Amino acid sequence: MQAELLIHADWILPVDPADSTLERHAIAVDQGRIAAILPRAEARAQIDAGRVLDLPGHALIPGLINAHTHSPMTLLRGLADDLPLMTWLHEHIWPAEGRWVDTEFVADGTRLAVLEMLRGGITCFNDMYFYPEVTARVVHEAGMRVLAGMIVVDFPTRYAESADDYLRRGLELHEHYRGNALVRTAFAPHSPYAVSEAPLMRVRTLADELEVPIHIHLHETRDEIVQSLREHGERPLARLERIGMLGPQLVAIHMTQLEDAEIERLAVTASHVVHCPESNLKLASGFCPVAKLLEAGVNVALGTDGAASNNDLNLLAEMRTAALLGKGVAGSASAVPAKTALRMATLNGAKALGIDDETGSLEPGKAADIVALDLGDPHTQPLYHACSQMVYAASSHQVTQVWVAGRQVIRDGRPLTLDPAAILADARGWRERIATADAAVVPAA
Amino acid sequence: MQAELLIHADWILPVDPADSTLERHAIAVDQGRIAAILPRAEARAQIDAGRVLDLPGHALIPGLINAHTHSPMTLLRGLADDLPLMTWLHEHIWPAEGRWVDTEFVADGTRLAVLEMLRGGITCFNDMYFYPEVTARVVHEAGMRVLAGMIVVDFPTRYAESADDYLRRGLELHEHYRGNALVRTAFAPHSPYAVSEAPLMRVRTLADELEVPIHIHLHETRDEIVQSLREHGERPLARLERIGMLGPQLVAIHMTQLEDAEIERLAVTASHVVHCPESNLKLASGFCPVAKLLEAGVNVALGTDGAASNNDLNLLAEMRTAALLGKGVAGSASAVPAKTALRMATLNGAKALGIDDETGSLEPGKAADIVALDLGDPHTQPLYHACSQMVYAASSHQVTQVWVAGRQVIRDGRPLTLDPAAILADARGWRERIATADAAVVPAA
Repeated sequence: MQAELLIHADWILPVDPADSTLERHAIAVDQGRIAAILPRAEARAQIDAGRVLDLPGHALIPGLINAHTHSPMTLLRGLADDLPLMTWLHEHIWPAEGRWVDTEFVADGTRLAVLEMLRGGITCFNDMYFYPEVTARVVHEAGMRVLAGMIVVDFPTRYAESADDYLRRGLELHEHYRGNALVRTAFAPHSPYAVSEAPLMRVRTLADELEVPIHIHLHETRDEIVQSLREHGERPLARLERIGMLGPQLVAIHMTQLEDAEIERLAVTASHVVHCPESNLKLASGFCPVAKLLEAGVNVALGTDGAASNNDLNLLAEMRTAALLGKGVAGSASAVPAKTALRMATLNGAKALGIDDETGSLEPGKAADIVALDLGDPHTQPLYHACSQMVYAASSHQVTQVWVAGRQVIRDGRPLTLDPAAILADARGWRERIATADAAVVPAA
Repeated sequence: MQAELLIHADWILPVDPADSTLERHAIAVDQGRIAAILPRAEARAQIDAGRVLDLPGHALIPGLINAHTHSPMTLLRGLADDLPLMTWLHEHIWPAEGRWVDTEFVADGTRLAVLEMLRGGITCFNDMYFYPEVTARVVHEAGMRVLAGMIVVDFPTRYAESADDYLRRGLELHEHYRGNALVRTAFAPHSPYAVSEAPLMRVRTLADELEVPIHIHLHETRDEIVQSLREHGERPLARLERIGMLGPQLVAIHMTQLEDAEIERLAVTASHVVHCPESNLKLASGFCPVAKLLEAGVNVALGTDGAASNNDLNLLAEMRTAALLGKGVAGSASAVPAKTALRMATLNGAKALGIDDETGSLEPGKAADIVALDLGDPHTQPLYHACSQMVYAASSHQVTQVWVAGRQVIRDGRPLTLDPAAILADARGWRERIATADAAVVPAA
């Protein structure tokens, strides 16, 4: 068999139905796709490869999928931490966004996010922010995957005037990227409290027509539930079910407030949940019952949320937090094992975003979205179980090589499609502008 | 003023009473101690330095203090994860320890732990394991600080035959290192359930005489409380108070099970608590009420626990987990702020171990235990608040320079007192031996 590239590694974690750990295997890549996965000796004998890459001491995993973020918010990373949620929003984040968010902010913030995410083994993300056409362009240039969110809120911003206007701009974006291999779209109505029922129902109809997911914050805090009960006489999930929004297209973010009957409704309707453990902890939103959701058969993916509430976009670390917190919340040391955490960060993400025919696992025929990690560092030695080591001990700086659809975007830890010096200079420029307008920031160094 | 070394950095977080962030300051080091901390221009004018080190984009923090670990257990890192506690202990950890723990295991495991910890900015740790004299020797050779635990358990091991024998060996260790600047000792009776009352009372008396801390696992799980109530008719903390063990010498590890009255007793007696959030989550032990303890005035330090239940010895990551989990457990986004997390990992650790006259903060007169972090990586940019960035976004690989008592032990990320290649080769050797004896381990690559 001919292949453009053959990658040998000590361990391959394909995220297959058996949660295999393949030892001393190789992946053959051709025309952007995985052509074969086979034992080292067979690969050497059978594959006529244009290039052979030997990665001793490395593990290969599927590209990580960050199933919820607001990528441009990297520029507000750490602007205002450790504050009550309403102080944080009203006195810092919203004023900064109102003043600064424009196409340049979104381009520069997304570029910084893309640099950080690719460097940490994330090959695809599900985004929700203003000017998604700018995010889509930046991601396309970097050779990464994205679901650019067709954002909808009721209130006007510089980006759009009304819910109808948001939808109009979103649909333009969708048309522009129709058929693109790397850039797809999803509807991204912010939440049931920030979007009223008429536009929600329009999103429901359009999502059916266009066959795209609906990405929405849901049951993030107890206050959200209380407010919905007060204003609508029902919990937000019940409202969405009444509107007809539950189903395989629903990608429900956070879900820290869940009754058993609601978990059952999510399972029966095949709705997806995206767990963002570090954001939920940092904003003290509550605890998502991950083990219960998984037991009920709900597909649970993983997201970092935006950099203002995390503060990094590091899905390896998020896997660890999900595995650790999942045990604490379930009261069981065997809940959310390492292999489940890896699955949440890869295949479950692809399922939630409707792209699991294309990515999310290492399987012949799928796109070659592949990440190599060097597990030779002192903190990942000795190594008894590759998956366990990766989830409970590895750091994102151990990511050495990243391919998206067969194209190498990170080599030996260095980005091939981005200019880090320029991106960091832009970030420092934003810091100077933003800091002078936020009274709580210590003067620049 | 003359000084051997002058270190300029963009930010210094001295962990002083005001939780200051000093911008563009410098630290002068002389004869192993901090001679002065002053603004950049004044430092240039006033300090006649033997060597000047400029660290643009860096923050300087006090050396981190890992207030609870079992360092040699690095050799069992990830041997058996995601299992119920009793399966983990009875089928994997204890059989492996029973078969393999000897002086060579402890030397090699400690060396790996010391490499990982120094590389991650930890300059001092509080250890509990068999053969503490071996741990003490390895740490002394590496130029690091340790409180070597004079371990006591009721049951015999290859190391000692009886509680009296453990104490005899511990006291020999104490005598050997009396007056040593870097190696100190603490009594380390394992727990109220593994050490009976006669040896506990002897520890109490000896700790008073020798003026050393008492390092003990306490209220780690609900089962521990239930068992104590059943066997002794009282909760473990009440038992220890009856024995006279509460007080400034008590370093109580874990404390996930606490009633309000118990928090009050800890505060009134000035006992210390060491919080190990990642271990508590991984073993599903329960949630330590950190914010409540801090509000009550209890000194709370931070530990990684052993590598078998974490799985790294990374106190930067543990700070983040403590800050995040503390908010989730308290239900408040302003609980356990970044500055408190840094204080827990430094000065509070020094207080708990009785060495805050010597280390734990950057202050003229204290030992020069200093860590430099490069905050220029994409995931720590832009930077609005240095402490927040360090706690919520920085990774341990951003630690570039580490000094212990003025001696540089890490330079540009590389250890100066250890041989990483030899340490990793030893770890791989142990992996081969241990893996062949544990049925659950996947065959070696």
